[in-house]
Amino acid sequence: MAELSINTARLWQTITASAAIGPGRAGGLRRLTLSDADREMRDIFVAWCRDAGCTVTVDAVGNLFARRAGQDNSLPPVMVGSHLDTQIAGGKFDGVLGVLAGLEIVRTLNDRNMATRRPLEVVSWTNEEGVRFQPPMMGAAVFAGALQRDWVLAQKDDDGLMFGEELRRIGYAGDAPPGGRAVDAYFELHIEQGPQLEAEGLQVGIVTGGFTTYGMHLTVHGENAHSGPTSMERRRNALVGAAMLIVGANEIGWRHHPEGRASSSRVVVWPNKYGILPDFAELTCDIRHPQPARAAEMLAELKKLIPQTEQRARVTVKVAREWTFGDVQFDAGCIGLVEAAARELQVPHKRMLSAAGHDAYHIAAIAPTAMIFTPCKDGVTHNEAEHIEPDYTAPGVNVLLRAVLARANR
Amino acid sequence: MAELSINTARLWQTITASAAIGPGRAGGLRRLTLSDADREMRDIFVAWCRDAGCTVTVDAVGNLFARRAGQDNSLPPVMVGSHLDTQIAGGKFDGVLGVLAGLEIVRTLNDRNMATRRPLEVVSWTNEEGVRFQPPMMGAAVFAGALQRDWVLAQKDDDGLMFGEELRRIGYAGDAPPGGRAVDAYFELHIEQGPQLEAEGLQVGIVTGGFTTYGMHLTVHGENAHSGPTSMERRRNALVGAAMLIVGANEIGWRHHPEGRASSSRVVVWPNKYGILPDFAELTCDIRHPQPARAAEMLAELKKLIPQTEQRARVTVKVAREWTFGDVQFDAGCIGLVEAAARELQVPHKRMLSAAGHDAYHIAAIAPTAMIFTPCKDGVTHNEAEHIEPDYTAPGVNVLLRAVLARANR
Repeated sequence: MAELSINTARLWQTITASAAIGPGRAGGLRRLTLSDADREMRDIFVAWCRDAGCTVTVDAVGNLFARRAGQDNSLPPVMVGSHLDTQIAGGKFDGVLGVLAGLEIVRTLNDRNMATRRPLEVVSWTNEEGVRFQPPMMGAAVFAGALQRDWVLAQKDDDGLMFGEELRRIGYAGDAPPGGRAVDAYFELHIEQGPQLEAEGLQVGIVTGGFTTYGMHLTVHGENAHSGPTSMERRRNALVGAAMLIVGANEIGWRHHPEGRASSSRVVVWPNKYGILPDFAELTCDIRHPQPARAAEMLAELKKLIPQTEQRARVTVKVAREWTFGDVQFDAGCIGLVEAAARELQVPHKRMLSAAGHDAYHIAAIAPTAMIFTPCKDGVTHNEAEHIEPDYTAPGVNVLLRAVLARANR
Repeated sequence: MAELSINTARLWQTITASAAIGPGRAGGLRRLTLSDADREMRDIFVAWCRDAGCTVTVDAVGNLFARRAGQDNSLPPVMVGSHLDTQIAGGKFDGVLGVLAGLEIVRTLNDRNMATRRPLEVVSWTNEEGVRFQPPMMGAAVFAGALQRDWVLAQKDDDGLMFGEELRRIGYAGDAPPGGRAVDAYFELHIEQGPQLEAEGLQVGIVTGGFTTYGMHLTVHGENAHSGPTSMERRRNALVGAAMLIVGANEIGWRHHPEGRASSSRVVVWPNKYGILPDFAELTCDIRHPQPARAAEMLAELKKLIPQTEQRARVTVKVAREWTFGDVQFDAGCIGLVEAAARELQVPHKRMLSAAGHDAYHIAAIAPTAMIFTPCKDGVTHNEAEHIEPDYTAPGVNVLLRAVLARANR
């Protein structure tokens, strides 16, 4: 089977076609979930899958499943996939590579008329990025039962547009119930989004689990007042409260450096005008650490900032929503298949954790799961300059192909 | 002349009518400059002025002048006024009281068939608040030659709507050139916007000048990156840079407490989404102190934050625009007239500075100017709960009437 390998040029053609749909301002992609560009990408992807002989189904939250029949279609499928939506200033590969690698695996098997015992399904999960509708990894979360379908359909973006209506608008509100069916295994290939593989000259990262991540929306309530006559001790400036939380969270990240990190990436302020102290701010904080106990410490430190900020800025701070992900250990059997494939193909590899969020974390709750990382230039991601090369990537996709095949023929 | 006094009930009728135009969410006003509500208020005010026998002219930036002829109309007018626009969550009296007090003075003189030697003009300046278009005090600034008309007409609000187009849309792009004509004197009555008069049981503050104020827009440039895999030392989070500046400015305010104050009331972040570190932020900082030398110290401290922030957050900070106001000493002659009127009417009063911005600062550069403060409840302003009572206010308006009359008959 040593000669079995994907057609890298063909994979790159699909990546290049995808890279033209929803272009960003600086050479990357801005393909927000349920946007017109998302529809266009879905349409092309579905056409490609049908051309490859797959049956495409769409579930009620827009997850796409392209099924290649197996020899025994009573068996649960082996799934391969990731997501086709991007960040608002995102790259051409984050998510996209994992879905199109799945399609390339189907095409490679078709080329050789190779059947598998179990059916294969190439999956594209809806709204992995969480940039337009929150939380991230929505489609996979519903499929795995971690979020309720109706709740997701009712979420709104910053312009007040509703997830369910936008999904109907782009024609991807499907009939299939999301989840509730057996999955034999799930494999996801993704760019590393960090610099380790490249720095160490490795072509494959075998992801064993994630950084434990805690996120929260915080609201800050203060009081409108005039920027001039209102003396400092009478102020209840919600923006000052938000800024104290943002600076404090950043300091927590540094205290747990180099493994820990803490981020604020979003603040909404009202009225956010000149001359009037704002009475409301809403912000997002996110902390991550590879060790769950250290992540819990960081979370406790973040929560300690709340009463401190309330006192210093004379505001009221509330935790409006909390979430967590990443404290997951992927399946030893699936990891073993990936590792065996990497050894067999003599691809330099190591085990590692992911610091990002992935659809695979949710699917791991309902099916044996593994992830493969491939290198990306300088670890740059969620940035339009994100870049990979075919040489960096093809070995990982071939490892994926072997692992999927082994599992599907089990 | 002891029997000459305004009709407080009639003044209150106009204030009550104004309070219904552009209502806020919580009992105050939200009458943003050049909005439909601004048009409605202007229409009613113009009708009232014409009913009072005035000739109304509108200049090219929308300033309104309601002229009551004098005995010698070759003499420059005495002006009385303030502004009819409000903050986005503003009160019913800030600015409004000063304009409608001017109208009430005209009506009182009409009641008694009292002529004045010089003509009187009741003025409403466009966009004092600076909430929708910046900087504040735009109309008065153009009239006094501190801003160029064409530059002002080209300014845009947060929705990209242009000042000049909005002015035309509401029908108040007038023919009169803004400024460039002699003004004998300018008097402005305004609520104090602070707690001093009420606390000391005084009914009139004679404003001798302003707190020296420095404002600036700062831009922060960082780099998009992923909130997870990007380690702390690789980050260039523009929001963290902005938050450091906001917290730092707040600390400067406290170091110069109780007289000094420093504010950030606005931050705009891009992309301001979950999961992606923002590459851009823009914020407004504003510092004030009654002593010009101390204000200059505060400004120097604020500017020292810039390189510190650039280093700590690995961002680039630029001063996109700077402005200053308030370092003004009003005219001794006009102040003397106000003080003489207060003494004559036995109204408890004191001299004081204003910590807010006022149209009068600009007009003081081209004409002898004075301001009268009247008390407001608890000093609350730029807040929908702003409140005054007729009893608190009428003595100040009567002082204004005497001072204006004395000047106009000089």
